[in-house]
Amino acid sequence: VPSAASQDTPGQDATGPKPLSNLALRLATAAVWVPLILYLLYWAPTWAFPLAATTVCALGARELFAMVAPQHAFLRVWGLLASSCLVVLIALAPPAHFIVLGLVAVVCGGMLSTLVAPQPLDRAAARMGWAVAGPLYVGGLFGAIALVFLRGGGSWTLLAMACGFLSDTAGYFVGKRWGKRPLMAAVSPKKTIEGSLAGLTAGVASGIVAHVWFLPSLSLPVAIVLSLAATAMGQAGDLCESVVKRATGVKESGGVLPGHGGILDRADAMLFSAATIYAYLVLVQG
Amino acid sequence: VPSAASQDTPGQDATGPKPLSNLALRLATAAVWVPLILYLLYWAPTWAFPLAATTVCALGARELFAMVAPQHAFLRVWGLLASSCLVVLIALAPPAHFIVLGLVAVVCGGMLSTLVAPQPLDRAAARMGWAVAGPLYVGGLFGAIALVFLRGGGSWTLLAMACGFLSDTAGYFVGKRWGKRPLMAAVSPKKTIEGSLAGLTAGVASGIVAHVWFLPSLSLPVAIVLSLAATAMGQAGDLCESVVKRATGVKESGGVLPGHGGILDRADAMLFSAATIYAYLVLVQG
Repeated sequence: VPSAASQDTPGQDATGPKPLSNLALRLATAAVWVPLILYLLYWAPTWAFPLAATTVCALGARELFAMVAPQHAFLRVWGLLASSCLVVLIALAPPAHFIVLGLVAVVCGGMLSTLVAPQPLDRAAARMGWAVAGPLYVGGLFGAIALVFLRGGGSWTLLAMACGFLSDTAGYFVGKRWGKRPLMAAVSPKKTIEGSLAGLTAGVASGIVAHVWFLPSLSLPVAIVLSLAATAMGQAGDLCESVVKRATGVKESGGVLPGHGGILDRADAMLFSAATIYAYLVLVQG
Repeated sequence: VPSAASQDTPGQDATGPKPLSNLALRLATAAVWVPLILYLLYWAPTWAFPLAATTVCALGARELFAMVAPQHAFLRVWGLLASSCLVVLIALAPPAHFIVLGLVAVVCGGMLSTLVAPQPLDRAAARMGWAVAGPLYVGGLFGAIALVFLRGGGSWTLLAMACGFLSDTAGYFVGKRWGKRPLMAAVSPKKTIEGSLAGLTAGVASGIVAHVWFLPSLSLPVAIVLSLAATAMGQAGDLCESVVKRATGVKESGGVLPGHGGILDRADAMLFSAATIYAYLVLVQG
Protein backbone atom coordinates (compact mmCIF):
# COMPACT_ATOMS: atom_id res chain seq x y z
CA VAL A 1 0.00 0.00 0.00
CA PRO A 2 1.63 3.31 -1.07
CA SER A 3 0.62 5.25 2.02
CA ALA A 4 2.10 2.61 4.32
CA ALA A 5 5.28 2.58 2.25
CA SER A 6 5.66 6.33 2.48
CA GLN A 7 5.19 6.11 6.25
CA ASP A 8 8.03 3.61 6.37
CA THR A 9 10.42 6.03 4.67
CA PRO A 10 10.11 9.29 6.59
CA GLY A 11 13.09 10.75 4.75
CA GLN A 12 11.23 10.60 1.42
CA ASP A 13 10.71 13.91 -0.38
CA ALA A 14 7.20 15.29 0.19
CA THR A 15 6.89 15.92 -3.56
CA GLY A 16 6.79 12.13 -4.18
CA PRO A 17 3.73 10.22 -5.39
CA LYS A 18 2.06 10.28 -1.93
CA PRO A 19 3.01 12.94 0.66
CA LEU A 20 4.13 11.79 4.08
CA SER A 21 1.37 11.55 6.64
CA ASN A 22 1.23 14.36 9.17
CA LEU A 23 2.34 11.93 11.90
CA ALA A 24 5.40 10.77 9.96
CA LEU A 25 6.35 14.37 9.20
CA ARG A 26 6.00 15.28 12.87
CA LEU A 27 8.22 12.39 13.93
CA ALA A 28 10.81 13.12 11.26
CA THR A 29 11.00 16.78 12.24
CA ALA A 30 11.24 15.86 15.93
CA ALA A 31 13.99 13.35 15.12
CA VAL A 32 16.09 16.21 13.75
CA TRP A 33 15.30 18.80 16.43
CA VAL A 34 15.40 16.82 19.68
CA PRO A 35 19.08 15.74 19.38
CA LEU A 36 20.00 19.22 18.14
CA ILE A 37 18.38 20.88 21.20
CA LEU A 38 20.00 18.37 23.60
CA TYR A 39 23.38 19.06 21.99
CA LEU A 40 22.89 22.82 22.38
CA LEU A 41 21.78 22.43 26.02
CA TYR A 42 24.53 20.08 27.22
CA TRP A 43 27.54 19.88 24.92
CA ALA A 44 27.80 22.98 22.69
CA PRO A 45 29.78 26.08 23.76
CA THR A 46 27.78 28.42 26.04
CA TRP A 47 27.11 31.02 23.33
CA ALA A 48 25.53 28.47 20.97
CA PHE A 49 22.14 28.14 22.68
CA PRO A 50 21.50 31.91 23.02
CA LEU A 51 22.56 32.31 19.38
CA ALA A 52 20.14 29.56 18.32
CA ALA A 53 17.39 31.18 20.43
CA THR A 54 18.02 34.47 18.62
CA THR A 55 17.77 32.78 15.22
CA VAL A 56 14.57 30.94 16.09
CA CYS A 57 13.21 34.18 17.61
CA ALA A 58 13.84 36.01 14.32
CA LEU A 59 11.88 33.31 12.45
CA GLY A 60 9.06 33.54 15.01
CA ALA A 61 8.95 37.33 14.73
CA ARG A 62 8.77 37.01 10.94
CA GLU A 63 5.73 34.74 11.31
CA LEU A 64 4.05 36.99 13.88
CA PHE A 65 4.38 40.14 11.78
CA ALA A 66 3.24 38.29 8.66
CA MET A 67 0.01 37.73 10.59
CA VAL A 68 -0.49 41.14 12.22
CA ALA A 69 0.92 43.42 9.49
CA PRO A 70 0.90 41.37 6.24
CA GLN A 71 0.78 44.43 3.94
CA HIS A 72 3.31 46.61 5.80
CA ALA A 73 6.85 45.74 4.77
CA PHE A 74 8.49 48.36 6.98
CA LEU A 75 6.73 47.06 10.08
CA ARG A 76 7.69 43.48 9.23
CA VAL A 77 11.36 44.44 9.00
CA TRP A 78 11.05 46.42 12.24
CA GLY A 79 9.45 43.44 14.00
CA LEU A 80 12.18 41.04 12.95
CA LEU A 81 15.06 43.39 13.84
CA ALA A 82 13.60 44.67 17.11
CA SER A 83 12.78 41.16 18.35
CA SER A 84 16.24 39.84 17.51
CA CYS A 85 18.01 42.81 19.12
CA LEU A 86 15.89 42.44 22.25
CA VAL A 87 16.89 38.77 22.73
CA VAL A 88 20.54 39.71 22.35
CA LEU A 89 20.19 42.63 24.78
CA ILE A 90 18.44 40.49 27.40
CA ALA A 91 20.87 37.60 26.99
CA LEU A 92 23.87 39.89 27.46
CA ALA A 93 22.45 40.73 30.94
CA PRO A 94 23.60 44.37 30.99
CA PRO A 95 22.90 46.78 33.90
CA ALA A 96 19.20 47.50 34.47
CA HIS A 97 19.17 50.94 32.85
CA PHE A 98 20.18 49.40 29.50
CA ILE A 99 17.24 46.99 29.72
CA VAL A 100 14.95 49.97 30.38
CA LEU A 101 16.58 51.77 27.45
CA GLY A 102 15.85 48.76 25.21
CA LEU A 103 12.25 48.77 26.40
CA VAL A 104 11.93 52.51 25.72
CA ALA A 105 13.49 52.02 22.27
CA VAL A 106 11.02 49.26 21.39
CA VAL A 107 8.08 51.42 22.51
CA CYS A 108 9.14 54.54 20.60
CA GLY A 109 10.56 52.62 17.62
CA GLY A 110 7.46 50.48 17.24
CA MET A 111 5.07 53.41 17.40
CA LEU A 112 7.17 55.50 14.98
CA SER A 113 7.49 52.55 12.58
CA THR A 114 3.70 52.41 12.40
CA LEU A 115 3.68 56.10 11.47
CA VAL A 116 5.73 55.36 8.32
CA ALA A 117 2.67 53.86 6.58
CA PRO A 118 -0.44 54.76 8.60
CA GLN A 119 -2.97 53.59 5.98
CA PRO A 120 -5.48 51.94 6.31
CA LEU A 121 -5.96 54.20 9.33
CA ASP A 122 -8.80 52.27 10.98
CA ARG A 123 -6.41 49.30 11.46
CA ALA A 124 -3.40 51.46 12.36
CA ALA A 125 -4.00 51.27 16.13
CA ALA A 126 -3.98 47.46 15.94
CA ARG A 127 -0.70 47.49 14.00
CA MET A 128 0.80 50.02 16.41
CA GLY A 129 -0.08 47.81 19.37
CA TRP A 130 1.69 44.83 17.82
CA ALA A 131 4.64 46.92 16.62
CA VAL A 132 5.39 47.34 20.34
CA ALA A 133 3.94 44.10 21.74
CA GLY A 134 5.45 41.82 19.06
CA PRO A 135 9.13 42.37 19.86
CA LEU A 136 8.33 42.10 23.58
CA TYR A 137 6.35 38.89 23.13
CA VAL A 138 8.77 37.06 20.86
CA GLY A 139 12.01 38.82 21.80
CA GLY A 140 11.18 39.15 25.49
CA LEU A 141 10.15 35.52 25.98
CA PHE A 142 12.97 34.03 23.87
CA GLY A 143 15.20 36.29 25.95
CA ALA A 144 13.71 34.68 29.06
CA ILE A 145 14.62 31.22 27.71
CA ALA A 146 18.14 32.40 27.01
CA LEU A 147 18.38 33.69 30.59
CA VAL A 148 17.00 30.40 32.00
CA PHE A 149 19.86 28.70 30.14
CA LEU A 150 22.54 31.22 31.14
CA ARG A 151 21.45 31.51 34.79
CA GLY A 152 20.15 28.00 35.43
CA GLY A 153 21.94 25.84 32.88
CA GLY A 154 20.78 23.22 30.39
CA SER A 155 18.65 21.17 32.79
CA TRP A 156 16.36 24.03 33.79
CA THR A 157 15.96 24.89 30.11
CA LEU A 158 15.20 21.25 29.35
CA LEU A 159 12.48 21.27 32.01
CA ALA A 160 10.90 24.40 30.48
CA MET A 161 10.98 22.86 27.02
CA ALA A 162 9.64 19.51 28.24
CA CYS A 163 6.68 21.21 29.93
CA GLY A 164 5.85 23.07 26.71
CA PHE A 165 6.57 20.42 24.09
CA LEU A 166 5.41 17.24 25.90
CA SER A 167 2.16 18.92 26.93
CA ASP A 168 1.56 19.90 23.30
CA THR A 169 2.33 16.39 22.09
CA ALA A 170 0.30 14.52 24.71
CA GLY A 171 -2.58 16.93 24.25
CA TYR A 172 -2.51 16.44 20.49
CA PHE A 173 -2.51 12.63 20.52
CA VAL A 174 -4.84 12.08 23.48
CA GLY A 175 -7.17 14.83 22.31
CA LYS A 176 -7.30 13.38 18.81
CA ARG A 177 -8.12 9.87 20.08
CA TRP A 178 -10.26 10.49 23.18
CA GLY A 179 -11.04 14.21 23.18
CA LYS A 180 -14.74 15.08 23.47
CA ARG A 181 -15.42 18.24 25.48
CA PRO A 182 -14.08 21.43 23.89
CA LEU A 183 -11.65 23.45 26.03
CA MET A 184 -12.32 26.91 24.57
CA ALA A 185 -14.19 26.35 21.33
CA ALA A 186 -14.38 29.98 20.22
CA VAL A 187 -10.60 30.35 20.28
CA SER A 188 -9.31 26.93 19.27
CA PRO A 189 -12.02 24.47 18.15
CA LYS A 190 -9.81 21.34 18.13
CA LYS A 191 -8.50 21.61 21.71
CA THR A 192 -10.32 19.48 24.27
CA ILE A 193 -10.41 19.24 28.06
CA GLU A 194 -9.22 15.63 27.76
CA GLY A 195 -6.23 16.76 25.72
CA SER A 196 -5.48 19.52 28.19
CA LEU A 197 -5.54 17.08 31.14
CA ALA A 198 -3.24 14.71 29.26
CA GLY A 199 -0.90 17.64 28.63
CA LEU A 200 -0.88 18.62 32.29
CA THR A 201 -0.12 14.99 33.20
CA ALA A 202 2.76 14.88 30.73
CA GLY A 203 4.08 18.17 32.11
CA VAL A 204 4.00 16.94 35.71
CA ALA A 205 5.60 13.68 34.58
CA SER A 206 8.47 15.65 33.06
CA GLY A 207 8.78 17.53 36.38
CA ILE A 208 9.07 14.22 38.23
CA VAL A 209 11.62 12.94 35.72
CA ALA A 210 13.56 16.16 36.27
CA HIS A 211 13.56 15.59 40.05
CA VAL A 212 14.62 11.96 39.72
CA TRP A 213 17.09 12.28 36.91
CA PHE A 214 18.43 15.47 35.38
CA LEU A 215 17.61 18.15 38.00
CA PRO A 216 18.07 16.43 41.40
CA SER A 217 18.41 19.78 43.22
CA LEU A 218 14.66 20.22 42.64
CA SER A 219 12.63 18.67 45.50
CA LEU A 220 9.67 16.49 44.52
CA PRO A 221 6.88 18.82 45.78
CA VAL A 222 8.46 21.84 44.09
CA ALA A 223 9.04 19.81 40.92
CA ILE A 224 5.35 18.88 40.77
CA VAL A 225 3.97 22.35 41.53
CA LEU A 226 6.41 24.16 39.26
CA SER A 227 5.95 21.81 36.30
CA LEU A 228 2.18 21.97 36.72
CA ALA A 229 2.29 25.78 36.72
CA ALA A 230 4.68 25.92 33.76
CA THR A 231 2.55 23.46 31.78
CA ALA A 232 -0.71 25.29 32.53
CA MET A 233 0.90 28.59 31.53
CA GLY A 234 2.15 26.90 28.36
CA GLN A 235 -1.35 25.75 27.44
CA ALA A 236 -2.66 29.27 28.05
CA GLY A 237 0.14 30.66 25.87
CA ASP A 238 -0.91 28.23 23.14
CA LEU A 239 -4.49 29.59 23.35
CA CYS A 240 -3.17 33.17 23.14
CA GLU A 241 -1.39 32.43 19.88
CA SER A 242 -4.60 30.77 18.66
CA VAL A 243 -6.41 34.06 19.32
CA VAL A 244 -3.91 35.90 17.12
CA LYS A 245 -4.25 33.30 14.37
CA ARG A 246 -8.03 33.19 14.37
CA ALA A 247 -8.43 36.95 14.71
CA THR A 248 -6.12 37.50 11.73
CA GLY A 249 -7.59 34.61 9.73
CA VAL A 250 -4.42 32.50 9.61
CA LYS A 251 -4.48 28.73 10.14
CA GLU A 252 -0.83 28.03 10.84
CA SER A 253 1.75 30.67 11.67
CA GLY A 254 4.16 29.21 9.11
CA GLY A 255 5.53 26.02 7.56
CA VAL A 256 9.14 26.00 8.75
CA LEU A 257 8.68 22.78 10.75
CA PRO A 258 7.06 20.09 8.54
CA GLY A 259 4.08 18.51 10.31
CA HIS A 260 4.23 21.04 13.16
CA GLY A 261 3.39 24.28 11.33
CA GLY A 262 5.50 27.34 12.02
CA ILE A 263 7.97 28.24 14.72
CA LEU A 264 5.31 30.08 16.72
CA ASP A 265 2.88 27.12 16.49
CA ARG A 266 5.52 25.01 18.19
CA ALA A 267 7.06 27.61 20.49
CA ASP A 268 3.91 29.35 21.80
CA ALA A 269 3.43 27.00 24.76
CA MET A 270 7.13 26.64 25.50
CA LEU A 271 7.60 30.44 25.62
CA PHE A 272 5.06 30.77 28.45
CA SER A 273 6.50 27.69 30.22
CA ALA A 274 9.95 29.26 30.04
CA ALA A 275 8.57 32.54 31.40
CA THR A 276 7.23 30.61 34.40
CA ILE A 277 10.55 28.85 35.02
CA TYR A 278 12.36 32.18 34.65
CA ALA A 279 10.05 33.78 37.24
CA TYR A 280 10.77 30.88 39.62
CA LEU A 281 14.53 31.22 39.19
CA VAL A 282 14.48 34.98 39.78
CA LEU A 283 11.99 35.02 42.67
CA VAL A 284 13.04 31.89 44.55
CA GLN A 285 16.71 31.50 43.72
CA GLY A 286 17.33 35.29 43.52
CA VAL B 1 -19.16 91.71 25.67
CA PRO B 2 -19.83 88.50 27.68
CA SER B 3 -17.17 86.40 25.94
CA ALA B 4 -14.50 89.03 26.59
CA ALA B 5 -15.60 89.25 30.21
CA SER B 6 -15.35 85.51 30.70
CA GLN B 7 -11.85 85.61 29.20
CA ASP B 8 -10.92 88.26 31.73
CA THR B 9 -11.91 85.99 34.63
CA PRO B 10 -10.20 82.68 34.02
CA GLY B 11 -11.08 81.48 37.51
CA GLN B 12 -14.81 81.63 36.73
CA ASP B 13 -16.75 78.38 37.03
CA ALA B 14 -17.36 76.77 33.60
CA THR B 15 -20.99 76.20 34.58
CA GLY B 16 -21.56 79.98 34.55
CA PRO B 17 -23.70 81.79 31.99
CA LYS B 18 -21.01 81.59 29.27
CA PRO B 19 -18.34 78.83 29.40
CA LEU B 20 -14.73 79.89 29.49
CA SER B 21 -13.04 80.09 26.12
CA ASN B 22 -10.66 77.25 25.31
CA LEU B 23 -7.72 79.66 25.62
CA ALA B 24 -8.78 80.83 29.08
CA LEU B 25 -9.26 77.23 30.22
CA ARG B 26 -5.82 76.32 28.89
CA LEU B 27 -4.21 79.19 30.75
CA ALA B 28 -6.11 78.46 33.96
CA THR B 29 -5.11 74.78 33.88
CA ALA B 30 -1.49 75.68 33.13
CA ALA B 31 -1.53 78.22 36.00
CA VAL B 32 -2.28 75.33 38.38
CA TRP B 33 0.04 72.73 36.88
CA VAL B 34 3.23 74.70 36.12
CA PRO B 35 3.91 75.76 39.75
CA LEU B 36 2.96 72.27 40.97
CA ILE B 37 5.43 70.63 38.59
CA LEU B 38 8.20 73.09 39.50
CA TYR B 39 7.55 72.41 43.18
CA LEU B 40 7.78 68.64 42.59
CA LEU B 41 10.98 69.02 40.56
CA TYR B 42 12.89 71.35 42.89
CA TRP B 43 11.47 71.54 46.41
CA ALA B 44 9.39 68.45 47.24
CA PRO B 45 10.92 65.32 48.83
CA THR B 46 12.58 62.97 46.30
CA TRP B 47 9.77 60.41 46.37
CA ALA B 48 7.08 62.97 45.49
CA PHE B 49 7.83 63.32 41.77
CA PRO B 50 7.96 59.55 41.04
CA LEU B 51 4.73 59.17 43.03
CA ALA B 52 3.09 61.94 41.01
CA ALA B 53 4.36 60.32 37.79
CA THR B 54 2.76 57.03 38.86
CA THR B 55 -0.57 58.74 39.55
CA VAL B 56 -0.56 60.59 36.24
CA CYS B 57 0.49 57.35 34.51
CA ALA B 58 -2.51 55.54 35.98
CA LEU B 59 -4.82 58.25 34.61
CA GLY B 60 -3.12 58.03 31.22
CA ALA B 61 -3.45 54.24 31.16
CA ARG B 62 -7.14 54.59 32.03
CA GLU B 63 -7.59 56.87 29.01
CA LEU B 64 -5.59 54.62 26.69
CA PHE B 65 -7.54 51.47 27.56
CA ALA B 66 -10.84 53.36 27.32
CA MET B 67 -9.84 53.92 23.67
CA VAL B 68 -8.42 50.49 22.73
CA ALA B 69 -10.71 48.23 24.82
CA PRO B 70 -13.82 50.29 25.68
CA GLN B 71 -16.08 47.24 26.18
CA HIS B 72 -13.62 45.05 28.10
CA ALA B 73 -13.66 45.90 31.80
CA PHE B 74 -11.09 43.25 32.78
CA LEU B 75 -8.58 44.55 30.23
CA ARG B 76 -9.12 48.13 31.42
CA VAL B 77 -8.36 47.15 35.00
CA TRP B 78 -5.34 45.17 33.83
CA GLY B 79 -4.04 48.13 31.82
CA LEU B 80 -4.30 50.53 34.74
CA LEU B 81 -2.69 48.16 37.26
CA ALA B 82 0.06 46.86 34.99
CA SER B 83 1.05 50.38 33.87
CA SER B 84 1.17 51.69 37.44
CA CYS B 85 3.18 48.69 38.70
CA LEU B 86 5.63 49.07 35.81
CA VAL B 87 6.37 52.72 36.66
CA VAL B 88 7.00 51.77 40.29
CA LEU B 89 9.22 48.84 39.27
CA ILE B 90 11.28 50.98 36.89
CA ALA B 91 11.56 53.87 39.37
CA LEU B 92 12.81 51.52 42.11
CA ALA B 93 15.76 50.69 39.80
CA PRO B 94 16.11 47.04 40.87
CA PRO B 95 18.72 44.61 39.42
CA ALA B 96 18.26 43.91 35.69
CA HIS B 97 16.67 40.48 36.08
CA PHE B 98 13.73 42.04 37.96
CA ILE B 99 13.17 44.46 35.08
CA VAL B 100 13.17 41.49 32.68
CA LEU B 101 10.77 39.71 35.02
CA GLY B 102 8.45 42.72 34.94
CA LEU B 103 8.60 42.72 31.15
CA VAL B 104 7.84 38.99 31.00
CA ALA B 105 4.95 39.49 33.45
CA VAL B 106 3.46 42.28 31.32
CA VAL B 107 3.73 40.12 28.17
CA CYS B 108 2.16 37.00 29.69
CA GLY B 109 -0.30 38.91 31.87
CA GLY B 110 -1.50 41.08 29.00
CA MET B 111 -2.01 38.16 26.64
CA LEU B 112 -3.78 36.08 29.29
CA SER B 113 -6.00 39.04 30.27
CA THR B 114 -7.19 39.20 26.67
CA LEU B 115 -8.12 35.51 26.87
CA VAL B 116 -10.59 36.27 29.69
CA ALA B 117 -13.08 37.79 27.23
CA PRO B 118 -11.98 36.91 23.69
CA GLN B 119 -15.17 38.10 21.95
CA PRO B 120 -15.51 39.75 19.47
CA LEU B 121 -12.75 37.51 18.20
CA ASP B 122 -11.92 39.45 15.02
CA ARG B 123 -10.78 42.40 17.19
CA ALA B 124 -9.14 40.22 19.85
CA ALA B 125 -5.67 40.38 18.27
CA ALA B 126 -5.82 44.18 18.35
CA ARG B 127 -6.81 44.16 22.03
CA MET B 128 -4.10 41.61 22.81
CA GLY B 129 -1.46 43.80 21.18
CA TRP B 130 -2.46 46.78 23.32
CA ALA B 131 -2.84 44.68 26.47
CA VAL B 132 0.94 44.23 26.19
CA ALA B 133 1.91 47.46 24.44
CA GLY B 134 -0.24 49.75 26.62
CA PRO B 135 1.52 49.19 29.95
CA LEU B 136 4.88 49.45 28.18
CA TYR B 137 3.92 52.66 26.39
CA VAL B 138 2.41 54.48 29.35
CA GLY B 139 4.18 52.71 32.21
CA GLY B 140 7.52 52.37 30.42
CA LEU B 141 7.72 56.00 29.31
CA PHE B 142 6.45 57.49 32.60
CA GLY B 143 9.05 55.20 34.18
CA ALA B 144 11.66 56.79 31.91
CA ILE B 145 10.63 60.26 33.17
CA ALA B 146 10.89 59.06 36.76
CA LEU B 147 14.39 57.75 36.02
CA VAL B 148 15.40 61.03 34.33
CA PHE B 149 14.39 62.73 37.59
CA LEU B 150 16.05 60.20 39.89
CA ARG B 151 19.28 59.91 37.84
CA GLY B 152 19.59 63.41 36.43
CA GLY B 153 17.61 65.57 38.84
CA GLY B 154 14.92 68.20 38.41
CA SER B 155 16.67 70.24 35.74
CA TRP B 156 16.98 67.38 33.24
CA THR B 157 13.33 66.57 33.83
CA LEU B 158 12.42 70.21 33.33
CA LEU B 159 14.26 70.19 29.99
CA ALA B 160 12.35 67.07 28.86
CA MET B 161 9.04 68.63 29.87
CA ALA B 162 9.88 71.99 28.28
CA CYS B 163 10.69 70.30 24.95
CA GLY B 164 7.37 68.47 25.01
CA PHE B 165 5.05 71.11 26.42
CA LEU B 166 6.50 74.29 24.85
CA SER B 167 6.61 72.63 21.43
CA ASP B 168 2.95 71.66 21.83
CA THR B 169 2.00 75.16 22.89
CA ALA B 170 4.01 77.04 20.24
CA GLY B 171 2.78 74.64 17.58
CA TYR B 172 -0.82 75.15 18.66
CA PHE B 173 -0.76 78.95 18.66
CA VAL B 174 1.47 79.51 15.61
CA GLY B 175 -0.30 76.78 13.67
CA LYS B 176 -3.70 78.26 14.50
CA ARG B 177 -2.65 81.74 13.41
CA TRP B 178 -0.27 81.12 10.48
CA GLY B 179 -0.52 77.39 9.71
CA LYS B 180 -1.21 76.58 6.05
CA ARG B 181 0.51 73.40 4.85
CA PRO B 182 -0.70 70.21 6.58
CA LEU B 183 1.99 68.15 8.33
CA MET B 184 0.36 64.71 8.07
CA ALA B 185 -3.26 65.32 7.14
CA ALA B 186 -4.38 61.69 7.25
CA VAL B 187 -3.31 61.29 10.88
CA SER B 188 -3.91 64.74 12.40
CA PRO B 189 -5.70 67.20 10.09
CA LYS B 190 -5.11 70.31 12.22
CA LYS B 191 -1.33 70.03 12.54
CA THR B 192 0.68 72.13 10.10
CA ILE B 193 4.31 72.36 9.00
CA GLU B 194 4.36 75.98 10.22
CA GLY B 195 3.20 74.85 13.65
CA SER B 196 5.77 72.06 13.70
CA LEU B 197 8.61 74.48 12.86
CA ALA B 198 7.43 76.85 15.59
CA GLY B 199 7.42 73.92 17.99
CA LEU B 200 10.96 72.92 17.05
CA THR B 201 12.06 76.54 17.54
CA ALA B 202 10.45 76.64 20.98
CA GLY B 203 12.12 73.33 21.88
CA VAL B 204 15.57 74.55 20.83
CA ALA B 205 14.94 77.80 22.71
CA SER B 206 14.24 75.81 25.87
CA GLY B 207 17.51 73.91 25.29
CA ILE B 208 19.38 77.21 25.05
CA VAL B 209 17.66 78.51 28.20
CA ALA B 210 18.69 75.27 29.93
CA HIS B 211 22.33 75.81 28.91
CA VAL B 212 22.34 79.45 30.03
CA TRP B 213 20.28 79.12 33.16
CA PHE B 214 19.14 75.92 34.85
CA LEU B 215 21.44 73.24 33.33
CA PRO B 216 24.83 74.95 32.88
CA SER B 217 26.68 71.59 32.69
CA LEU B 218 25.10 71.17 29.25
CA SER B 219 27.30 72.70 26.53
CA LEU B 220 25.59 74.92 23.93
CA PRO B 221 26.04 72.60 20.90
CA VAL B 222 24.81 69.57 22.86
CA ALA B 223 21.92 71.61 24.28
CA ILE B 224 20.81 72.57 20.76
CA VAL B 225 21.13 69.11 19.22
CA LEU B 226 19.58 67.30 22.18
CA SER B 227 16.63 69.66 22.55
CA LEU B 228 16.02 69.53 18.78
CA ALA B 229 16.02 65.69 18.88
CA ALA B 230 13.82 65.57 21.99
CA THR B 231 11.35 68.05 20.46
CA ALA B 232 11.18 66.23 17.11
CA MET B 233 10.63 62.94 18.93
CA GLY B 234 7.93 64.63 20.99
CA GLN B 235 6.11 65.82 17.88
CA ALA B 236 6.32 62.30 16.44
CA GLY B 237 4.95 60.92 19.71
CA ASP B 238 2.06 63.35 19.44
CA LEU B 239 1.29 62.02 15.94
CA CYS B 240 1.43 58.43 17.26
CA GLU B 241 -1.23 59.17 19.86
CA SER B 242 -3.26 60.86 17.10
CA VAL B 243 -3.13 57.58 15.17
CA VAL B 244 -4.60 55.74 18.15
CA LYS B 245 -7.32 58.36 18.60
CA ARG B 246 -8.34 58.49 14.94
CA ALA B 247 -8.15 54.72 14.45
CA THR B 248 -10.39 54.17 17.49
CA GLY B 249 -12.72 57.07 16.60
CA VAL B 250 -11.97 59.17 19.68
CA LYS B 251 -11.43 62.94 19.49
CA GLU B 252 -9.75 63.62 22.82
CA SER B 253 -8.27 60.96 25.07
CA GLY B 254 -10.08 62.43 28.09
CA GLY B 255 -11.19 65.60 29.85
CA VAL B 256 -9.08 65.60 33.00
CA LEU B 257 -7.24 68.80 32.04
CA PRO B 258 -9.78 71.52 31.08
CA GLY B 259 -8.88 73.08 27.74
CA HIS B 260 -6.11 70.55 27.10
CA GLY B 261 -8.14 67.33 26.77
CA GLY B 262 -6.92 64.26 28.62
CA ILE B 263 -3.65 63.33 30.27
CA LEU B 264 -2.46 61.51 27.17
CA ASP B 265 -3.30 64.47 24.89
CA ARG B 266 -0.95 66.57 26.98
CA ALA B 267 1.67 63.93 27.84
CA ASP B 268 2.06 62.21 24.46
CA ALA B 269 4.79 64.56 23.21
CA MET B 270 6.49 64.89 26.58
CA LEU B 271 6.72 61.09 26.96
CA PHE B 272 8.76 60.77 23.77
CA SER B 273 10.87 63.83 24.68
CA ALA B 274 11.63 62.24 28.04
CA ALA B 275 12.54 58.96 26.34
CA THR B 276 15.09 60.89 24.24
CA ILE B 277 16.58 62.62 27.28
CA TYR B 278 16.69 59.29 29.11
CA ALA B 279 18.55 57.68 26.20
CA TYR B 280 21.05 60.55 26.25
CA LEU B 281 21.64 60.20 30.00
CA VAL B 282 22.19 56.43 29.76
CA LEU B 283 24.30 56.39 26.59
CA VAL B 284 26.43 59.50 27.13
CA GLN B 285 26.62 59.88 30.89
CA GLY B 286 26.65 56.10 31.52
